[in-house]
Amino acid sequence: MERNETFLQKAEELKPTLHTRRVSALGSKTPLKKGGSLTLDFGEHLVGTVTIRLAFVGSHPDAPAWLRLKFAEREQELSENVEDYHGWISASWVQQEQIHVDVLPCEVRLERRYAFRYVQLEVLDISGKYDLVVKGADCEAVSSADEAALLPYETEDAFLRQIDAVACKTLHECMQLVFEDGPKRDRRLWMGDLRLQALANYQSYRNHDLVKRCLYLFAGSTLPGGRVGAGLFLEPEIEVDDTAMFDYSLLYVPTLLDYYETTGDRETLTELWPTAWRQIELAQDHFDGRGLVRDSDVRGWCFVDWNLALNKQAGAQGIYLYCLRAAEKIAEILDDAEKSAWIKADYEKKKRAALDGLYDAAQGLFVSGAEKQVSWASQIWMVLGGVCGGDVLHRVEKAEAVTMVTPYLYHHYVQALLDVGEKEKALQVLTEYWGGMVKEGADTFWELYDPADPNASPYGGTIVNSYCHAWSCAPAYFLRKYFSK
Amino acid sequence: MERNETFLQKAEELKPTLHTRRVSALGSKTPLKKGGSLTLDFGEHLVGTVTIRLAFVGSHPDAPAWLRLKFAEREQELSENVEDYHGWISASWVQQEQIHVDVLPCEVRLERRYAFRYVQLEVLDISGKYDLVVKGADCEAVSSADEAALLPYETEDAFLRQIDAVACKTLHECMQLVFEDGPKRDRRLWMGDLRLQALANYQSYRNHDLVKRCLYLFAGSTLPGGRVGAGLFLEPEIEVDDTAMFDYSLLYVPTLLDYYETTGDRETLTELWPTAWRQIELAQDHFDGRGLVRDSDVRGWCFVDWNLALNKQAGAQGIYLYCLRAAEKIAEILDDAEKSAWIKADYEKKKRAALDGLYDAAQGLFVSGAEKQVSWASQIWMVLGGVCGGDVLHRVEKAEAVTMVTPYLYHHYVQALLDVGEKEKALQVLTEYWGGMVKEGADTFWELYDPADPNASPYGGTIVNSYCHAWSCAPAYFLRKYFSK
Repeated sequence: MERNETFLQKAEELKPTLHTRRVSALGSKTPLKKGGSLTLDFGEHLVGTVTIRLAFVGSHPDAPAWLRLKFAEREQELSENVEDYHGWISASWVQQEQIHVDVLPCEVRLERRYAFRYVQLEVLDISGKYDLVVKGADCEAVSSADEAALLPYETEDAFLRQIDAVACKTLHECMQLVFEDGPKRDRRLWMGDLRLQALANYQSYRNHDLVKRCLYLFAGSTLPGGRVGAGLFLEPEIEVDDTAMFDYSLLYVPTLLDYYETTGDRETLTELWPTAWRQIELAQDHFDGRGLVRDSDVRGWCFVDWNLALNKQAGAQGIYLYCLRAAEKIAEILDDAEKSAWIKADYEKKKRAALDGLYDAAQGLFVSGAEKQVSWASQIWMVLGGVCGGDVLHRVEKAEAVTMVTPYLYHHYVQALLDVGEKEKALQVLTEYWGGMVKEGADTFWELYDPADPNASPYGGTIVNSYCHAWSCAPAYFLRKYFSK
Repeated sequence: MERNETFLQKAEELKPTLHTRRVSALGSKTPLKKGGSLTLDFGEHLVGTVTIRLAFVGSHPDAPAWLRLKFAEREQELSENVEDYHGWISASWVQQEQIHVDVLPCEVRLERRYAFRYVQLEVLDISGKYDLVVKGADCEAVSSADEAALLPYETEDAFLRQIDAVACKTLHECMQLVFEDGPKRDRRLWMGDLRLQALANYQSYRNHDLVKRCLYLFAGSTLPGGRVGAGLFLEPEIEVDDTAMFDYSLLYVPTLLDYYETTGDRETLTELWPTAWRQIELAQDHFDGRGLVRDSDVRGWCFVDWNLALNKQAGAQGIYLYCLRAAEKIAEILDDAEKSAWIKADYEKKKRAALDGLYDAAQGLFVSGAEKQVSWASQIWMVLGGVCGGDVLHRVEKAEAVTMVTPYLYHHYVQALLDVGEKEKALQVLTEYWGGMVKEGADTFWELYDPADPNASPYGGTIVNSYCHAWSCAPAYFLRKYFSK
C-alpha cells in the first residue's frame, strides 16, 4: 500500500462535523414475559446510537433479563433469522445483539451505530418474579448532511416530490465522515458509489468539501503502483481496501472532473490529476493488442452490476472509454497538450476495437465475453462511452438479455437515455423503478431492486441486504438537474 | 416493605473498599476463522471485569467479527449449551454474551462482572478476508477480602491445607460489597448463607465490619411486620427480597450472636436485638397449639436443603429450637430477664412437642410431614436444636432416608457431629465431602455436590449451577477452629 501523507492531511482537515438529532419511539405498557417481544417504530430511517429505557413490574428483579435486539431498516427484516442465512458474505452484518440487563429500571445505551427504522426487543429469558416494561427508546441520529443547506426541489408532481424526498433521505443517511455506501453495510467509502453520491450531492446538500475529502482520501492511500482501490477503510486508520476493480479505479477520473465542473476548484484538480491519470495508465495492462479489454474469470475484477451472471468485458470497454473522455476534458482544462493528443488517439483506437470486436451486426447489439453474452449493461456503457447512439437501448428491450439488478446500473441506464435525448423515456424508467420502491413503502432507496424479483440477493440471503444505499440516490440528481420546474 | 434509614445509613458507612488485582491469560497465535474457537484459562477462579485483546491477520477487516463469549467456572460448563437448558430458573444467569467487533485491532472491555476461570471465544461469523487473532485477555479481579489479613492455617496435613485453601478462595470470591451467595448466581446477600460465611470469615479474613454491615442491611429493609427477608438486593437501591423462608428469617438470631461473641460489639447487639427478637415472635404463627411447626406445601416456605423431595417440618422445628437457644443467650447477655424466662418455657414446650410429635421410637429417628418422611436434615437439626443426642446420626446412615445435596446442609451435619463429640467422624465427613470436590478439580467449592450424583441440579440443568458458592466454605471454619495444630 502507498500513502501520501500530504493528501491524507488535507482529507483530515476536511473531516466534517456530524449533526445530531434526537428521535424517540414510544414503548408499550404491556409487560413482557419470557418469549415476549415488542417492535418500536421510530417512524423514519435513522443512523445513530440507541438508548432503550427499561423498567419492570412485579417483584424486585432477582435475575438478569436476557434480551435479543434486532435493528431493521424494513419491517420484513424482523421476520428473517440470521440462523437461516448461509450466504457468502458475513452474517456479522446483521444488526442483532444479545444483551443482559443486570439492574432495573435502567437506560441501556448501546455503543454501536445502527441503521434502522424498527427495533425489535425480544425477551430470551427472564425471572418469573417480574415482567419487563419497555418504556421507550431514543436515537441520537447522526449525519454530516446539513438539512438547512438542502436546495428545494420545484415540481408540481407530488409523486416525483416523494421520490426526490426518499432519494435525499437516502443520501442524507449515507453522508457521514465520508460518503458511505450504506450505513448498515458496508459503512464505507467505495469509488463507484462516491461518484453517484457526489452527483446527487451537487444538486441537493452541496457539501462539496465532503467530496473533496473523499477524493484526497482515495489519492492518499493507494494500491501498489498508485492504483486507486475500490474502497477505503477509515478505522483504526485510513487504509485502502486491497480489493481493486477495473471500473472502480477508472471512475476516479470522471469523479474528479465532476467535482471541478461543480466547484471550479482548479487547485484540487491540478493536485489530483496525476492520481487520475495514473488510473488511465494502469488500465492499459487490461487491453490486448487490438485495444480490447481482456475478459477475466476472477470474480469482482470489474463491478458493473450485482448480477452474478453478467459478463463484464464489454461493459469494461465502455467504462474505459467513458473515463477516457473525462480525462481528455481534464487534460484540456489543464492545457496538457501531450496527454490530450495521446488520449484522442487511444480513444479512437479503443472505440474502433469495440465496434470491430464486440458489436454483433446481425443483432445490432454489443456482445461480451467468449459466449458473446448480450446484456443491458454492455449496451448502456457503450452509449455512455460514446461508441454508439441510442438504438441499442431499444433493441436490447426485445432481446434475451442479462438484466439490471441494482439501482447503480439503473442510474447509468437513465443517464444513457438522457445522453441520447430520450428524456421522456428516462423519466418513465426513473418513475417506474425508483417509484416502484416507494410504492413498496421504502423510506430510503435500496441497494438492490429487481421489480421482477423483489427478494433477490447476490449474497445468498436478503437479511444482509442494505436498504439505504447511496448508489440508489439517483433521483435526487436526475429530477433536480433534468426535471425541475 | 419497611425501611429503617438509621440502620441503612450505618450499613452504607460500612461499605467496604474493593481490592483489585490484574490477572492475564494468554491467547493463541493460531488465527480463527468462522466457527473457530479458543479457550483462555486464567489459571484460577476470578470475579471481575474482562478486557479481551483482539487482532487480525489477512486483509483489512471488511466486516465486523461476530463472537460468542462463554465464561465458565468449571471447564465442563463450556460444553453445555444454554439452548438445551429448559429449567425453572432463568437462563439469563448463564454467563454468555454475543458481541460484534467493528474495528480491529482492539481491546474489548466487557462491562459486566463475571465469575470464571475459563473464557471461551467462538467466531460465529467473520469475513473470509481476514482471520481473528486472540492475543490475550485481562481480568480486573475484585474482592473485599484482604489477603494480607488472612490468618494462617496450621496443619501438617497437605490435603487439609488444600481443602482449606479452596474454602478460603471460595469465601474470598464471594466477599464483595456484601457477602454474596455466589458471584455467578445469585450475586446477592442471603441470610442462611451469610451465617456460614460469617463463621468462616471469623477464622480467616476477619472482616467483621462486613458482617456488621450485612446485619444492618437485613435490619434496615424488612418485610411487613419487621420480618427479616430471605435475601436482599443492593441495586438500584437496597430492598429486601419479597421471598421469606421460615428458617432464613430465624437464622438472623444466631448470626447476630456469633457476631457479638466474636467481636464483643455490645452496641450493635443491643441495637439489633429487637430485630432478632422480632423473628422469634413472628415464628409463632407457624406453630400449632401443641407447639409443632405446621407443615406447608408452599415451595420454599422453609429452605433447609436443595433436595426437592425433602419435607421441611421436622427440620424447621429443630431450626426454631436452635435459634431460640441463641436468643436465650442474647437475652442473658443483655440482662433481659423477662424474655429469658419466656424463652426457657417456650423451648421446653417445643422440644417436648418435637419428641412427642416427630420422634418415631420404633425407628429411633425423627420423621417429618404427613408421610412421616425420614431424612438426614431432620436428624441433624434435632441434634443442633438440642432435642436429642448423636444416636440419630448413626441410625440415619442405615435408614432409607432423604439425602443431603448441598454443602449448606453438610455444614450443619459436620457441626452436629462436633456438637455430640464425634470429632473424628466430623473430620472424615469433611475430608470426604469437600475433599471429593477437590479431587474433582474444584478451584472453589460448589453450590451443589452429591457424591452419588455429581451432575444433579435442582434447577433442571447444571448450566445454571454456581460453582463458587459461599455456603460451601465450611472447611475454612471447621478446620481452623477444630482441626488446627
